[in-house]
Amino acid sequence: MRPSGRAHDQLRTISLEPHFSKHAEGSCLVRFGDTHVLCTASVDEGVPRFLKNTGLGWVTAEYGMLPRSTHSRTDREAAKGKQSGRTQEIQRLIGRALRAVTDRAAMGEKQIKIDCDVIQADGGTRTAAITGSFVALHLAFQHLMQIGALKTMPLTDHVAAVSCGIYKNTSVLDLDYAEDSTAQADANFVLTGNGGIVEVQGTAEERPFAEPQFMELLALARKGINELVALQKAAIAVK
Amino acid sequence: MRPSGRAHDQLRTISLEPHFSKHAEGSCLVRFGDTHVLCTASVDEGVPRFLKNTGLGWVTAEYGMLPRSTHSRTDREAAKGKQSGRTQEIQRLIGRALRAVTDRAAMGEKQIKIDCDVIQADGGTRTAAITGSFVALHLAFQHLMQIGALKTMPLTDHVAAVSCGIYKNTSVLDLDYAEDSTAQADANFVLTGNGGIVEVQGTAEERPFAEPQFMELLALARKGINELVALQKAAIAVK
Amino acid sequence: MRPSGRAHDQLRTISLEPHFSKHAEGSCLVRFGDTHVLCTASVDEGVPRFLKNTGLGWVTAEYGMLPRSTHSRTDREAAKGKQSGRTQEIQRLIGRALRAVTDRAAMGEKQIKIDCDVIQADGGTRTAAITGSFVALHLAFQHLMQIGALKTMPLTDHVAAVSCGIYKNTSVLDLDYAEDSTAQADANFVLTGNGGIVEVQGTAEERPFAEPQFMELLALARKGINELVALQKAAIAVK
Amino acid sequence: MRPSGRAHDQLRTISLEPHFSKHAEGSCLVRFGDTHVLCTASVDEGVPRFLKNTGLGWVTAEYGMLPRSTHSRTDREAAKGKQSGRTQEIQRLIGRALRAVTDRAAMGEKQIKIDCDVIQADGGTRTAAITGSFVALHLAFQHLMQIGALKTMPLTDHVAAVSCGIYKNTSVLDLDYAEDSTAQADANFVLTGNGGIVEVQGTAEERPFAEPQFMELLALARKGINELVALQKAAIAVK
Amino acid sequence: MRPSGRAHDQLRTISLEPHFSKHAEGSCLVRFGDTHVLCTASVDEGVPRFLKNTGLGWVTAEYGMLPRSTHSRTDREAAKGKQSGRTQEIQRLIGRALRAVTDRAAMGEKQIKIDCDVIQADGGTRTAAITGSFVALHLAFQHLMQIGALKTMPLTDHVAAVSCGIYKNTSVLDLDYAEDSTAQADANFVLTGNGGIVEVQGTAEERPFAEPQFMELLALARKGINELVALQKAAIAVK
Amino acid sequence: MRPSGRAHDQLRTISLEPHFSKHAEGSCLVRFGDTHVLCTASVDEGVPRFLKNTGLGWVTAEYGMLPRSTHSRTDREAAKGKQSGRTQEIQRLIGRALRAVTDRAAMGEKQIKIDCDVIQADGGTRTAAITGSFVALHLAFQHLMQIGALKTMPLTDHVAAVSCGIYKNTSVLDLDYAEDSTAQADANFVLTGNGGIVEVQGTAEERPFAEPQFMELLALARKGINELVALQKAAIAVK
Repeated sequence: MRPSGRAHDQLRTISLEPHFSKHAEGSCLVRFGDTHVLCTASVDEGVPRFLKNTGLGWVTAEYGMLPRSTHSRTDREAAKGKQSGRTQEIQRLIGRALRAVTDRAAMGEKQIKIDCDVIQADGGTRTAAITGSFVALHLAFQHLMQIGALKTMPLTDHVAAVSCGIYKNTSVLDLDYAEDSTAQADANFVLTGNGGIVEVQGTAEERPFAEPQFMELLALARKGINELVALQKAAIAVK
Repeated sequence: MRPSGRAHDQLRTISLEPHFSKHAEGSCLVRFGDTHVLCTASVDEGVPRFLKNTGLGWVTAEYGMLPRSTHSRTDREAAKGKQSGRTQEIQRLIGRALRAVTDRAAMGEKQIKIDCDVIQADGGTRTAAITGSFVALHLAFQHLMQIGALKTMPLTDHVAAVSCGIYKNTSVLDLDYAEDSTAQADANFVLTGNGGIVEVQGTAEERPFAEPQFMELLALARKGINELVALQKAAIAVK
Repeated sequence: MRPSGRAHDQLRTISLEPHFSKHAEGSCLVRFGDTHVLCTASVDEGVPRFLKNTGLGWVTAEYGMLPRSTHSRTDREAAKGKQSGRTQEIQRLIGRALRAVTDRAAMGEKQIKIDCDVIQADGGTRTAAITGSFVALHLAFQHLMQIGALKTMPLTDHVAAVSCGIYKNTSVLDLDYAEDSTAQADANFVLTGNGGIVEVQGTAEERPFAEPQFMELLALARKGINELVALQKAAIAVK
Repeated sequence: MRPSGRAHDQLRTISLEPHFSKHAEGSCLVRFGDTHVLCTASVDEGVPRFLKNTGLGWVTAEYGMLPRSTHSRTDREAAKGKQSGRTQEIQRLIGRALRAVTDRAAMGEKQIKIDCDVIQADGGTRTAAITGSFVALHLAFQHLMQIGALKTMPLTDHVAAVSCGIYKNTSVLDLDYAEDSTAQADANFVLTGNGGIVEVQGTAEERPFAEPQFMELLALARKGINELVALQKAAIAVK
Repeated sequence: MRPSGRAHDQLRTISLEPHFSKHAEGSCLVRFGDTHVLCTASVDEGVPRFLKNTGLGWVTAEYGMLPRSTHSRTDREAAKGKQSGRTQEIQRLIGRALRAVTDRAAMGEKQIKIDCDVIQADGGTRTAAITGSFVALHLAFQHLMQIGALKTMPLTDHVAAVSCGIYKNTSVLDLDYAEDSTAQADANFVLTGNGGIVEVQGTAEERPFAEPQFMELLALARKGINELVALQKAAIAVK
Repeated sequence: MRPSGRAHDQLRTISLEPHFSKHAEGSCLVRFGDTHVLCTASVDEGVPRFLKNTGLGWVTAEYGMLPRSTHSRTDREAAKGKQSGRTQEIQRLIGRALRAVTDRAAMGEKQIKIDCDVIQADGGTRTAAITGSFVALHLAFQHLMQIGALKTMPLTDHVAAVSCGIYKNTSVLDLDYAEDSTAQADANFVLTGNGGIVEVQGTAEERPFAEPQFMELLALARKGINELVALQKAAIAVK
């Protein structure tokens, strides 16, 4: 029995609220249950130095948590003067995930900066961030097409993410904080709309896990991500 | 004529949404028109070193802006590794304003940390932050009373803030970004519910201003703050 | 009765010693009683990026305290690796004050960097710094005129500053440290030679103050600043 | 055909040189072909604060590259004043991998700090570092047993790591730099001596990969890690 | 011929102004010609951690330059967020020089922090700083004796410093900036009142120098330091 | 009697292993007994800004210690976020020493970056680093000549370094850690192959030392450096 009463293969209540921000070219407030992440996509004319004159664009991401998004207050990274290793891992992951479905030649020498800011955290912030960022990125590209700065949509597929884990010896989908903090193992899966694997990160917390267990988690992730992609399609269709 | 069509002594649409955060002991999402600030109050057992064994408590504040809360994207302070001078000025101001209406002996050796995070900016973020933080602080103290950690409410009065400025030679209340960026002078006023002056910060942007003009701005601020205090009272009464 | 025996509307002994530095284009050692601040103005060909090709110049300021300028030793900011919020507030204030009387088109695309270093502190370092910096800035512009780099003096008026406060229920002018550390309220006023208000910063330390009290402080400031401007004129006239 | 002429399931020449350091309680110079990493284990009496009085020990790791370990020189992180996101990811991974085979209750309230410093890099530094660190950690625990500070060996299994990838449409074991920089996908596997999965990190570089491909990589990793564990056993047996 | 017209073995005009600071326990403004350094000595009850419960005291030094103490403005180290290698070298040198004549057992578990701040620079700031710091330190110890916190003077000898160099093929004493910037070689000597060598730092700028030249510089230094020690004695005698 | 049993004028066993690194243009692993330092020379097209268009090249050095190169573990500078004063002193010294024998006009507008990384420390790391860096630098210049990027060897002489000290009242050559940590005085000498003095740094640890003692140390250094230069010549001759 899961603390939330969910079935083992059931996502939390998901919502994707597009056009949340007045200023950003693309934005989406994503909610995986009580985990709320604001994703914005900002267009930046000009690419990092290593891409100058290559004809290729770039998509990069930054991630942050509001200090009291967490159960007890976390020190503000801007006040501490540096980003934690965890923050850097997550923002690198988000950037890689989005670039995996972006045709960087089609977007030209532009940069899209994704900001994922956790307003409230209850487990799974990185997977929510990837899922919502895709919507924000899509909307930003739509905007560039509408103003004539792009001819074609540079996205080649959808990308979404979800965590799975072994909780009380059972494989479950979309861990919330209560599950995550006591899971025996957990894995984050980033898959495309077509089911391709973009990124897999599995970690045994308590003791190593066996291959069949890992396969179970992957199967759960496929189910969840199919549902997330359907919700992304609906969100993108909103005017 | 103001860009927003408001009368010269008219606030933007204000909303104070209490209990916004699942985790914080007190919280309030404050909106001054398109300026949206999330204010949380976190209780911390234990005071800064200089207050150990004095019997006095402390209220302090931190302030931040989401990178794309602004018209064009602002670099993330956590990524730059330091907070700007502006950020530090604002968070010091918020802390002073709240302490001015707090009986620090009555709260005992506790610390309340206020976090003001700007979700969307359209001018006046610091005055919105002070106004909303008062509600978050009040709710945190209420919480401490409900759990028996405090006997009496340590707040001695309300405190709220608003900006005024000289825009196209007219004194106007509650500048939005369109006005703020071209105002000839502006001033932030922090007043108590009883009308006492807690803080005044007036700055001539373009050319010095004269005493009667300054008095006009103060009078507008009084009117606006009376309205804000009424809204604070309504917000605090929400269960 | 004031600790120093001064009348309530009496400045400390003020001295402005121009041409103090062998190297700087303009300099002034300012003394407000035991508060001693060295102000230098350094000419820098080239403006900050946001002013490139605008035809406008820039005046900016930095502020620091020698570690043992204070009653007990303060940690060196260079050793701590960052400037405090207080330092940043003060240096931003000095820069704004000087720019308010500078015709930035007349100075052309140049930058003047003001350094205010507190050699000894006894209250009122920021107001002394503004008052002395004006002299240093004036001398630097004079120097630029003498070498033919400027045709006209880009300063449109004098600017000086003084603090006032409520000490033992009496409004007093030019607080020294003994007064400042126990004042009920204090305010810093930055006024021009013509009496225009450039900046007002009033803060209630202990309890909010009322509008008539605030007016009293402003009147005291006017008197003090008239005297300071007269001393500036004398200092500038020194060859 | 691989650039090195290796078979698709062939490791590079591996060497594990124990007792490399005169000072460290445990040490191992590990070579995966031209990738050379010095791993040291330093015993620290005293655990991080969050483990005080829990009876549990801690194993943590730090990672660095000498500036000219790489093909072209990389800036020194100590000179830049911060560790890159990549460095932080890797050192977190090494620490997790080692803790997964450590009985932290059996080691008591001690800390072992692992330092992995890349002397020369040619791909796969993180997997070499994990494989060599296990030897250094084992030797440090042996040392603690010899001096009577530990009764039993707190390691519950071996742990080793290897990378696999899809290079020119073929799944290959133990990527060197020439392969890594052009691989279509790569994955790092951290497995125990008993074949349990500790960590899996798969990333599609160019386009998403399919589940059967991922299974192929895992099978290659199993083969390679069996060989690495055999070499670890030989290294640990050296006096 | 030296640019200043001095004889090859002639110091600049030296002045040592004791009791310069209102707040510090010991202080001295030292002038070597146009090089002016304010040296303060601050008493700190409590020693660095490595000296706790050893019965030994500590003397340490910090060094800084005002931004416009130099010919052209130098960036402020507090604004850059770190101290240069040069600054760190100099402050370590000053601390070692003073400790060499301090009986740290006699001073007990106290710390004296020396601050050397360059008000104006014209070459030789580190040697001026050592010479002036000795006076400040002596006065601080005198103060501690007067208030009964020390029974005996913990200084075992005088210490002073001077630079010598090879300028236009001639060995000269006490280089000023004009000489220093073009010298073929220069050396800083720190000697005691009794002529003992505390520190020698010789550096060939342009081409290596020979042993007899080095001996010439040392002889010049002895002469200069005898004169500096006599001035220190006079300064210390001032009430 | 020295702890190592060496004669007072005897170096430790020295080895200079050229071409140690696969990637660097020049490299040398230098061993002074148990002190092992890896020196690499990296060619960088492009000089620091202050040398642009002067026709002159630059040689600079960085220094670091692996955390467990020392008897007990030293915190990693990259993790602390800054280099210590000692590190900066040493790297400045290495750079100056190498530049003293480099004809910077002959090398043209190129930069060579020397990295000296201490693999294992047992006293004398800075002198070993200078001695080994010369070999690395020489090999890098040889490489530039072989590829036709330089016509002539820009080195004008050899340079090597050794420490001497007063240990138990006896002058000894090449202090190891056991001697260094208890020496009464020590000095580092940097001399050229022709016997010219490039740098002398003598420091009295316990009490000042006299001129004849200093001369004894210099004589020992000459002997040692002659031997080191002979070993450099042999190392450079290795293909």
